[in-house]
Amino acid sequence: MYYFTSDYTEGCTPEILEALAATNFEQTGGYGIDPYCETAALLIKKECGRSDIDVHFMTGGTQTNLTIICAALRPFHGVYGTVQSHINTHEAGAIERTGHKVIDLPTSDGKITAAMIRQQHELYLGDPSREHLVQPKMVYISQPTEIGSLYHKEELEALYAVCRHYGLYLFIDGARLGYGLTAPDNDLTLADITNNCDVFCIGGTKCGALFGEAAVIINPALKDDFRTIMKQGGAVLAKGRLLGLQFETLFTDGLYYKICRHGVELALQIKAAVQERGLGFVTDSTTNQQFIIFPQAMYDELSKQFALAPWEYMDDGRIAARICTSWATDPTQVDRLCNMIRQL
Amino acid sequence: MYYFTSDYTEGCTPEILEALAATNFEQTGGYGIDPYCETAALLIKKECGRSDIDVHFMTGGTQTNLTIICAALRPFHGVYGTVQSHINTHEAGAIERTGHKVIDLPTSDGKITAAMIRQQHELYLGDPSREHLVQPKMVYISQPTEIGSLYHKEELEALYAVCRHYGLYLFIDGARLGYGLTAPDNDLTLADITNNCDVFCIGGTKCGALFGEAAVIINPALKDDFRTIMKQGGAVLAKGRLLGLQFETLFTDGLYYKICRHGVELALQIKAAVQERGLGFVTDSTTNQQFIIFPQAMYDELSKQFALAPWEYMDDGRIAARICTSWATDPTQVDRLCNMIRQL
Amino acid sequence: MYYFTSDYTEGCTPEILEALAATNFEQTGGYGIDPYCETAALLIKKECGRSDIDVHFMTGGTQTNLTIICAALRPFHGVYGTVQSHINTHEAGAIERTGHKVIDLPTSDGKITAAMIRQQHELYLGDPSREHLVQPKMVYISQPTEIGSLYHKEELEALYAVCRHYGLYLFIDGARLGYGLTAPDNDLTLADITNNCDVFCIGGTKCGALFGEAAVIINPALKDDFRTIMKQGGAVLAKGRLLGLQFETLFTDGLYYKICRHGVELALQIKAAVQERGLGFVTDSTTNQQFIIFPQAMYDELSKQFALAPWEYMDDGRIAARICTSWATDPTQVDRLCNMIRQL
Amino acid sequence: MYYFTSDYTEGCTPEILEALAATNFEQTGGYGIDPYCETAALLIKKECGRSDIDVHFMTGGTQTNLTIICAALRPFHGVYGTVQSHINTHEAGAIERTGHKVIDLPTSDGKITAAMIRQQHELYLGDPSREHLVQPKMVYISQPTEIGSLYHKEELEALYAVCRHYGLYLFIDGARLGYGLTAPDNDLTLADITNNCDVFCIGGTKCGALFGEAAVIINPALKDDFRTIMKQGGAVLAKGRLLGLQFETLFTDGLYYKICRHGVELALQIKAAVQERGLGFVTDSTTNQQFIIFPQAMYDELSKQFALAPWEYMDDGRIAARICTSWATDPTQVDRLCNMIRQL
Repeated sequence: MYYFTSDYTEGCTPEILEALAATNFEQTGGYGIDPYCETAALLIKKECGRSDIDVHFMTGGTQTNLTIICAALRPFHGVYGTVQSHINTHEAGAIERTGHKVIDLPTSDGKITAAMIRQQHELYLGDPSREHLVQPKMVYISQPTEIGSLYHKEELEALYAVCRHYGLYLFIDGARLGYGLTAPDNDLTLADITNNCDVFCIGGTKCGALFGEAAVIINPALKDDFRTIMKQGGAVLAKGRLLGLQFETLFTDGLYYKICRHGVELALQIKAAVQERGLGFVTDSTTNQQFIIFPQAMYDELSKQFALAPWEYMDDGRIAARICTSWATDPTQVDRLCNMIRQL
Repeated sequence: MYYFTSDYTEGCTPEILEALAATNFEQTGGYGIDPYCETAALLIKKECGRSDIDVHFMTGGTQTNLTIICAALRPFHGVYGTVQSHINTHEAGAIERTGHKVIDLPTSDGKITAAMIRQQHELYLGDPSREHLVQPKMVYISQPTEIGSLYHKEELEALYAVCRHYGLYLFIDGARLGYGLTAPDNDLTLADITNNCDVFCIGGTKCGALFGEAAVIINPALKDDFRTIMKQGGAVLAKGRLLGLQFETLFTDGLYYKICRHGVELALQIKAAVQERGLGFVTDSTTNQQFIIFPQAMYDELSKQFALAPWEYMDDGRIAARICTSWATDPTQVDRLCNMIRQL
Repeated sequence: MYYFTSDYTEGCTPEILEALAATNFEQTGGYGIDPYCETAALLIKKECGRSDIDVHFMTGGTQTNLTIICAALRPFHGVYGTVQSHINTHEAGAIERTGHKVIDLPTSDGKITAAMIRQQHELYLGDPSREHLVQPKMVYISQPTEIGSLYHKEELEALYAVCRHYGLYLFIDGARLGYGLTAPDNDLTLADITNNCDVFCIGGTKCGALFGEAAVIINPALKDDFRTIMKQGGAVLAKGRLLGLQFETLFTDGLYYKICRHGVELALQIKAAVQERGLGFVTDSTTNQQFIIFPQAMYDELSKQFALAPWEYMDDGRIAARICTSWATDPTQVDRLCNMIRQL
Repeated sequence: MYYFTSDYTEGCTPEILEALAATNFEQTGGYGIDPYCETAALLIKKECGRSDIDVHFMTGGTQTNLTIICAALRPFHGVYGTVQSHINTHEAGAIERTGHKVIDLPTSDGKITAAMIRQQHELYLGDPSREHLVQPKMVYISQPTEIGSLYHKEELEALYAVCRHYGLYLFIDGARLGYGLTAPDNDLTLADITNNCDVFCIGGTKCGALFGEAAVIINPALKDDFRTIMKQGGAVLAKGRLLGLQFETLFTDGLYYKICRHGVELALQIKAAVQERGLGFVTDSTTNQQFIIFPQAMYDELSKQFALAPWEYMDDGRIAARICTSWATDPTQVDRLCNMIRQL
């Protein structure tokens, strides 16, 4: 059985294991105050084209999301997200536990547009009982989105312009950012992202690291005391250098891009096979997640050899499933899967 | 410069790096549902002598403390801890962020006694305005304590009896448990601890792992939905197997005890040198942390070659410092330190 | 200008002012431990037909809602409510500040049906990643609803049966309960309500009191330490007797029903005039709130003499407005309003 | 039995009942947007000598404290208070429920001095692990204190200077402010208080109102969105005019001072009798609370006719009790009490 269920089924890119072994008995300071975190932050700042930004490392995605949101908002603030957004669905109420409402917006392609925010926020501003409403203060988006779609440069610039207009923070969750940056139709660099949001994160866990997310804070209003709020939430790793070392490795010699591109290319091979076979998709994706609509019999047959993630049971008996590739995916297995898809 | 500042200055015991390398490309389920976590939990249950307990793995100490306390308490509950307890001092208000008051008790040796709880809790119960007070519901202790002292079996049994009498949960923070279990005067096994508290944790981060704490839940009232509360706090590692693998390694063939004993033995060599030299201690410790009171000049001289952690500046000009050994401490450096102490 | 904008524009039913004056210099205990609260609780228990229930008095609706929800739920629990539910819209995120997600359900008539809960909750139970979801634990409904509609006995019984089946608490917000109990088509007594939910509240503020809500707790699991959680949230009035005295007055000789019926009857006079005139409604209401769809010109004309509450601006240029009557509404003004509606 | 147990045993000063009756059927807007709140705010601003301050009305003391603190602090901030401070002892953990630690300072006379803050805060600032500590951001004091003592002008000015120096907010809880302003040795006007803190409140509940506290916000940084945070905590009264009306009444023609002075004068009569009789006090108080140390037999004898509030059982068998007078205290009963004290 080969797993296409997620992009965190394996360990890490071997360069990281090598770096861990090579530095194991070095003594460093704790809690992220060490040379590896310092170097990793510098590499990321360089890649983002800005030296006036803060970089912090945390171990996981939910932790990173809740820490950033908790740090940015006052108690009565809420955050706009899509109905399917990770913070609205799969974080067990993490944002609510920090006291904040996720104001959910319907969307078909997983994205929030500038127009959606404009319409929704004008309703808020025009409500005479505004003092009795949750006050929206942040827009949360994922790049790529939870269903594999991508924001393009024009969309992001328009969205951020609206956010700035209304005084809303824009937070981009980049848990799978590597698979977005290396998608064939991507037109956003890390520098573009940096210049078009207030805070974002660069995912390591799903992009070749054992674990780890880098939070990048651009807006000075969000920088103060961020480490204390991390600590308060249990989000400071004692041996913080483990995070620094991993991001240093990933951002040296373009490794992050190289290994993520591998995942994207294999996903697009699967996409091509699905298209050849004439099957449909939940949404169009050029990244490492493909949401494919299978006839039940075909899904069952594939499932004998490959683990897929069921996504939705359609009324007509078909089944939508997520197929996830990653930096670790074995091309031979992708070939086998594609052949089965073409032949079933 | 050699660091005696903490027990998390190095990486991990080499067996863990080997296990990581050996399993790196295996595919497993995420979020701690994998064979390594299962095996690690079984090994710990066996060591604790009980199969009816739950074991969960988290990445750090503050995270573990806040998750356990948040899971156990209702909003108006408070937790008794010493004034110096980690949750009262060095977690940036993590417990308060979950909504709970740390009710601090003064102590000179870092320990909470049965008598202290009896006296304090009777005051609470006898207060006619009890409904307006924080309701104490848990006692938090550390083994070893934050200042290196140890609870012995008789003390723990008496304390737990009082807790049961009053319906208080007893939570033992074992961030440095390995250095307690291998102290020469220790008379508590993991099974004894299991039978004398409601929940405790076994520290990995300071005891040979890269990171990781094992939460052991004994009281059935604390078991339900624990994984959901972990997830909600960002305390579920996506590649949870990294935690399972580390604890499996530590609890195979007594490795945990073996490497921690190393740390304790070196600490006791330092203690002996300090005693020979006629210096005093903040408190008597038989574990890996020694709190030593140095004349300023001697402290300054030692600091040229060794990093120590200043603990308290005494009124008489002397300085109390913490010296910390660990599984990773180099005996040669301990020899050098001891020689300097004896000769200065 | 006469106000039909809400049911809290005036002070209180005169019997309450008399009772306040008559008892002003009596000395009583504080915080709701006094003979008036005791008597009021007894009167309410009698009206509910149960002596094994707890009654607590608070000053306002949001306060009552957040206190009940905070007391009932563990941190990862969520509460089902309609999209328009008061807790989801007009409490500024009060429920989220206590850490809980409002899981919003779409509805056209303001009501949650047994079928809706069954469908939604089965989705939750069938989700393989359930541990990563907010755990629904309570259903919140309002009687009458936020848009004036009423639950009937059969509906409530079916809903509560489903709640019991799934282990969900049912909480009925009765901020306007008096106007529901005296609606012509109402078939629920206070005893019926008591037997078909876990907790509910009886509104005083909108039903003749200066202020005050009575929380009635039926489910024993929700009773413990309720007063402490009230105190912790600032919801215990120092001179609690003011609340007891008001509810004693309202529940003596059927005053609560008598004055609320007054409000309902006047609302139905307005409804009849609207129907005669051939105008439509947002939803059918037999209670004190009527949501009427006016042509813009007619709305403007009425607004010269009466304050109405705009509810929604329709795409076709018409305007939906809320007209609210109460225990205090002047019948002469209702006559004038009805005449204008008929003649414009 | 006559009660000297607290200053909230009776209803309100009769002028308030008259005002309620006179305005009962007026129609006004809700939630504190009405002419009475507006007038009351103006009267208070005038008394404070400043027009650039915000005034908000809430129903109770704990509610006011938690709302102000919740509005002012970020999640990792803590608030300095004395060990006996109301927020540290008798609010059931209200401040912790908003997520903040009360950093308790020992004191014998109930007061916090400038020197205490300087010493404590320098320790914080000098701690190398400061990022792991709760960050103090506010100083909370009560005027008069919980044990009846008073801050004088010089003390308050010094304390506020230190607060400004360290960027700490100074919050003065004036639940009994009327009894402080009318104490014979008081040298602080409302204007002085306004100029020497960031936010304070003027107690109504204990000073002649049925209920109500006026929060006065001086520091612009604390003003934004205060009403939304009130609403979110259930602290906005629907018929807010009831609060406005009461404070308008109290601050018209000096009524607040007049009725509070009555309470203080009677307390001082009792104090004089106690001194004549040669009994001691817990602390020296010139306000409406006297903490008197009685021989047990004398306490028992007095308790047959007067309800006193036991405060502390001394080791030598004596008992400290609080005697509280108020705007409502009957001088005849004070005479009787004084006579008994002198003669027993």
